[in-house]
Amino acid sequence: MKAATVNAATLKAPADPQALAQACAASMWADDRASQGLGMVLEAVGPGHARMAMAVTEAMVNGHGICHGGFIFALADSAFAFACNSRNARAVAAQCSIAYLRPGKLGDRLVAVAEERAVAGRSGIYDIRVLDGQGTVIAEFRGHSRQVGQSFFEEA
Amino acid sequence: MKAATVNAATLKAPADPQALAQACAASMWADDRASQGLGMVLEAVGPGHARMAMAVTEAMVNGHGICHGGFIFALADSAFAFACNSRNARAVAAQCSIAYLRPGKLGDRLVAVAEERAVAGRSGIYDIRVLDGQGTVIAEFRGHSRQVGQSFFEEA
Amino acid sequence: MKAATVNAATLKAPADPQALAQACAASMWADDRASQGLGMVLEAVGPGHARMAMAVTEAMVNGHGICHGGFIFALADSAFAFACNSRNARAVAAQCSIAYLRPGKLGDRLVAVAEERAVAGRSGIYDIRVLDGQGTVIAEFRGHSRQVGQSFFEEA
Amino acid sequence: MKAATVNAATLKAPADPQALAQACAASMWADDRASQGLGMVLEAVGPGHARMAMAVTEAMVNGHGICHGGFIFALADSAFAFACNSRNARAVAAQCSIAYLRPGKLGDRLVAVAEERAVAGRSGIYDIRVLDGQGTVIAEFRGHSRQVGQSFFEEA
Repeated sequence: MKAATVNAATLKAPADPQALAQACAASMWADDRASQGLGMVLEAVGPGHARMAMAVTEAMVNGHGICHGGFIFALADSAFAFACNSRNARAVAAQCSIAYLRPGKLGDRLVAVAEERAVAGRSGIYDIRVLDGQGTVIAEFRGHSRQVGQSFFEEA
Repeated sequence: MKAATVNAATLKAPADPQALAQACAASMWADDRASQGLGMVLEAVGPGHARMAMAVTEAMVNGHGICHGGFIFALADSAFAFACNSRNARAVAAQCSIAYLRPGKLGDRLVAVAEERAVAGRSGIYDIRVLDGQGTVIAEFRGHSRQVGQSFFEEA
Repeated sequence: MKAATVNAATLKAPADPQALAQACAASMWADDRASQGLGMVLEAVGPGHARMAMAVTEAMVNGHGICHGGFIFALADSAFAFACNSRNARAVAAQCSIAYLRPGKLGDRLVAVAEERAVAGRSGIYDIRVLDGQGTVIAEFRGHSRQVGQSFFEEA
Repeated sequence: MKAATVNAATLKAPADPQALAQACAASMWADDRASQGLGMVLEAVGPGHARMAMAVTEAMVNGHGICHGGFIFALADSAFAFACNSRNARAVAAQCSIAYLRPGKLGDRLVAVAEERAVAGRSGIYDIRVLDGQGTVIAEFRGHSRQVGQSFFEEA
């Protein structure tokens, strides 16, 4: 619901970092039709980290049942977004890179685990590992974020 | 149609580089449900280059009408795939990076232009520029490809 | 000479873009002991581009006569710096990537050619190609710059 | 001493992974005039990891005492090389990226810590963090390695 998001900026930020991360995530998720439409599930979120899952569907594969790299990227990118927006400062992706190690397959439930690597001023670096259903790494993503000077909630 | 693709390997490769690029593209496109499902259109293809277009739909945006980076990446990635598979040697993406310069917007018709930058042995580097409806650059993508030792058509 | 650089900010910026690029380069070069110490030669500079050369010396190679990647990177990085500082706005490297295609060899005179790929706000993307003595590409470098809000010369 | 390196291939590989890593490092180091010439010190090495230090000298800085990015890259690149060559399979850098977070300064003793992030077939991904004298992160480097099909020592 868009109204909720607009009003959020006038709400007080939770003092607890974990509660704050969940509140930021709730605000972002409400707006994120793209991640919702791809069937993503936000499994966990906290200060500087997030875990997102997505099943590889028929619409995501080629004729050989191999997942298009763009969808693996999208999953990692969403996990990245929730991790780098978990401390009340709105941030956007400036630059991202992905290395493909093994194919994603039709029916696989992929999991992307995002962790903060470094923060300096408004810039952040996040590493996102994408695992297949057996827990094998299929891709490694590194995202560079940049804060835009806005917040989700009013600072106490 | 999958059968056509399977049979393709027994067909002779066209001698003309432009005809070969188009034949490789036709074979790949038949299989590429992901690019088809996202509404992509392959506007042009030739030896080492390709141009792919895609409209930004409601399913690709957040509540503010801004395109999820994963879809911009997917468009560039598809243009990259057609460019690096245009000379009869099958190649896959090894590593890709994308820098976001401006947002993609709901209703925009994005165009990704892929050009070969360098080739050395089985490795290739391709630069893909993503433009919005006004021809303004919104993202720059660089893809590193790796040939897998298979071909689309039988070499003459 | 450091004093010259400090005074530069009070000098008027040349109106001609080519003259401005050369003036910015002269100011940077005076300070750049690192590039000087590696024997680099700035062969050309202009708005958004630069060409820098360097010979591969004994101090840069391993026992097999292959140039350490760090020196190939340093040459490309210097060409990048002169290209992204050619329009009077001081900029620094935020993120760089390099792909090695072929080895650099002892005695080779390497040339790095930097070209502007895209600019958006304070961010820029530059592509630098490194060639060996025969004009063969040995590395491809992409640099992301960020302007810091200072200038070399006083704007007219 | 070059002779030692040449003979190394006829020596048996140590069975213990830590001893093997140290033996590979000793063989590489003997050849690595570039790292030696820059005053690097290999502080630690083991299976998949390495730690390398280097002081920022006058020859590495510009007139403002800021270290040229190429030397920070070179330090990280050397740590990467020792980490990805620690298991008897010779590997080279295919692609590397570096993000600069803070400046390196004249007199600083920089330390680069390399850790293995993922391995798949002949490809590997390594993360190298560069710290200044106070232990603050000044750069994050990610290296992609590729094994070349040779070994340092004869496999038992």
